[in-house]
Amino acid sequence: MSRQSNRTTDSKKMNSELFTLTYGALVTQLCKDYENDEEVNKQLDKMGYNIGVRLIEDFLARSSIGRCQDFRETADVIAKVAFKMYLGVTPSVTNWSPAGDEFSLILENNPLVDFVELPDNHNTLIYSNLLCGVLRGALEMVQMAVDVRFVQDTLRGDNVTEIRMKFIKRIEENLPAGDE
Amino acid sequence: MSRQSNRTTDSKKMNSELFTLTYGALVTQLCKDYENDEEVNKQLDKMGYNIGVRLIEDFLARSSIGRCQDFRETADVIAKVAFKMYLGVTPSVTNWSPAGDEFSLILENNPLVDFVELPDNHNTLIYSNLLCGVLRGALEMVQMAVDVRFVQDTLRGDNVTEIRMKFIKRIEENLPAGDE
Repeated sequence: MSRQSNRTTDSKKMNSELFTLTYGALVTQLCKDYENDEEVNKQLDKMGYNIGVRLIEDFLARSSIGRCQDFRETADVIAKVAFKMYLGVTPSVTNWSPAGDEFSLILENNPLVDFVELPDNHNTLIYSNLLCGVLRGALEMVQMAVDVRFVQDTLRGDNVTEIRMKFIKRIEENLPAGDE
Repeated sequence: MSRQSNRTTDSKKMNSELFTLTYGALVTQLCKDYENDEEVNKQLDKMGYNIGVRLIEDFLARSSIGRCQDFRETADVIAKVAFKMYLGVTPSVTNWSPAGDEFSLILENNPLVDFVELPDNHNTLIYSNLLCGVLRGALEMVQMAVDVRFVQDTLRGDNVTEIRMKFIKRIEENLPAGDE
């Protein structure tokens, strides 16, 4: 990584409830702002992406984790280090594709949806879609193009929450101009 | 308290950075939605209020704290228990009014403003105003009407962030119908 963080990495650990309720306020606001669930889902993904491209620097500084050898290692780091660090939960990594380019993160407990019930008129809302954007943005900054989407969601009646991640390609490293 | 929480109180501890960036996305969205900073400040306070009236239940369940004897005890509980629990920091309680009905919370380190710089065209934005609403809403649920506002903010060049809290009155207890 050529970028340097000048932030301190002192850890402020907090319970998740204020975050959960603040996230709820954000989704509620977007539902007021946009015409339909699809637009809200897109906005959440986009916001998440912008968060991910910034969060990755904090993550690398805090975790001291270097380049992953393969997608399996990436999966483990996301589940056991990143989710644990920023959401306080550890999803399981499962449902690998035979080619090893796709896996699922299974969350038995998604902190974003504590306190939440989807209203009937929002049955296509992907409430936690910000997370997909965060993962996509963060991984892009470490040269991995990855498709990320929810395939199960407890909010919509599924037993667990499942995020499906598919490796697309390694991105050629273009160092930002003047940043070497 | 006549209200019962049916939520579990297992604690999910998380680092604050994802929350900080998500809060930033919320403020950015509101700045797009509303014409001026004053409206955004109002919306943040209102959202915070709605969060506070819900968060208090979680707080009481988690902290096992009963009714405070006086405003000084309330101040200590807010600073040492509530801020620590939900933001991972402990502000100092200071600048008491002679009558004991006003004090300040001084935050040397406000986790909401990590990563943040206010753009020049938002110099009247009270970026962290959600917190005032949260405090006001939560205290109202325990029968205290309190005025809460920022009087100093590191984002606006002050050395510390100072939240001023003024006790207004004790609210008559009206139990919700059918909730006994």
